[in-house]
Amino acid sequence: MPVYERIASLGITLPDVTPPVAAFLPFVRSGNQIFLSGHIAKKDGKPWVGQLGANLTTELGTKAARGIAIDLMATLNLAVGDLNKIRQIVKLMVLVNSAPTFTEQHLVANGASELLAQVFGEDGMHARSAFGVAQVPFGSCVEIDLIAEVNDR
Amino acid sequence: MPVYERIASLGITLPDVTPPVAAFLPFVRSGNQIFLSGHIAKKDGKPWVGQLGANLTTELGTKAARGIAIDLMATLNLAVGDLNKIRQIVKLMVLVNSAPTFTEQHLVANGASELLAQVFGEDGMHARSAFGVAQVPFGSCVEIDLIAEVNDR
Amino acid sequence: MPVYERIASLGITLPDVTPPVAAFLPFVRSGNQIFLSGHIAKKDGKPWVGQLGANLTTELGTKAARGIAIDLMATLNLAVGDLNKIRQIVKLMVLVNSAPTFTEQHLVANGASELLAQVFGEDGMHARSAFGVAQVPFGSCVEIDLIAEVNDR
Repeated sequence: MPVYERIASLGITLPDVTPPVAAFLPFVRSGNQIFLSGHIAKKDGKPWVGQLGANLTTELGTKAARGIAIDLMATLNLAVGDLNKIRQIVKLMVLVNSAPTFTEQHLVANGASELLAQVFGEDGMHARSAFGVAQVPFGSCVEIDLIAEVNDR
Repeated sequence: MPVYERIASLGITLPDVTPPVAAFLPFVRSGNQIFLSGHIAKKDGKPWVGQLGANLTTELGTKAARGIAIDLMATLNLAVGDLNKIRQIVKLMVLVNSAPTFTEQHLVANGASELLAQVFGEDGMHARSAFGVAQVPFGSCVEIDLIAEVNDR
Repeated sequence: MPVYERIASLGITLPDVTPPVAAFLPFVRSGNQIFLSGHIAKKDGKPWVGQLGANLTTELGTKAARGIAIDLMATLNLAVGDLNKIRQIVKLMVLVNSAPTFTEQHLVANGASELLAQVFGEDGMHARSAFGVAQVPFGSCVEIDLIAEVNDR
């Protein structure tokens, strides 16, 4: 199973997914598409609080985005049961908690995009929108949601 | 028709939908999916102006989000003709007009998410992204768009 | 080919698309839907830097959004090979780099919406979300992404 081998070869262990407590779901399937809820950056299991351009470097923001991509893969794994059934990562929306002067949202987003390409290869290449937001729930520094297409028939 | 009974039992009357005057539509269907335009919070028919963390409490923001969910259901009703044909509320994007220090966008968003779950039950449970934006058209305090899946064949 | 005639009659030449250098794609197809990455406003081939409500008028923002719509059509053309195969422009997300007091994101967005309606007619009418963001990559004044449905079978 190449996808899981690539994940292991990167030294990554997919975390257990803790479904949110609120009136929404971590993912919903519609036809062959799976919509994942916005996942916020975490550190030691808690929201990774910070703002790019204020108290967090681009390098750390990129690391935070990479961490979210790991959580997104864990949720995808829960949704599909087998990550080899992912036909394509379709779209990422990357929200970067940004001070008014910070303009490197694309570099932060690369932390997630590059990991997905490493793990899924061509199937991990996606369309993307990245931009700076005024805040993220719990003050987290980055939030990412994702649409993937499944091939399980 | 259980959905309409649940709406009535909550004391809710779906408003008439006023299609926007600009070069865009309140909804577009693509396959079995219906994409709803961003709906802004209104009060007495006018934009509900305000910013969370500045001049609006989380409680009022939550109420504003609930009001938008009512407007979204009215638009869905116009789009599908019968809300019982909604197979699933797939995804919500909740934009909260936020002062730099406000980090409770998830609580504001719950105002919409919980109402949709009350009205549609399991079919109303959705994926969601909520975050803080710098502004919303007309200075409105919250804006929400939605993707739903229809089953009408 | 009416679509290209309309583009020409508006005096528009679709630019060559330069695929981004990062780990993401300008577009991804999923079923009959094409998801376009966020395209930022450009001027003379470089990011059109500015913020609405700070150093850019609504009129210029509208022009910037119209310019992005041209770039989006060029990417769609690359994706589909023939713009006459576009069944419908489904959804636009318009991100306006906004000072805290700027509330005319809908007017800025009209620059893109109206051009798409001029070029594609009824098929260009779309659902839309427009809002103010804290920043856009490279400091660009507007960013827009798009979902379109293709009919090529």
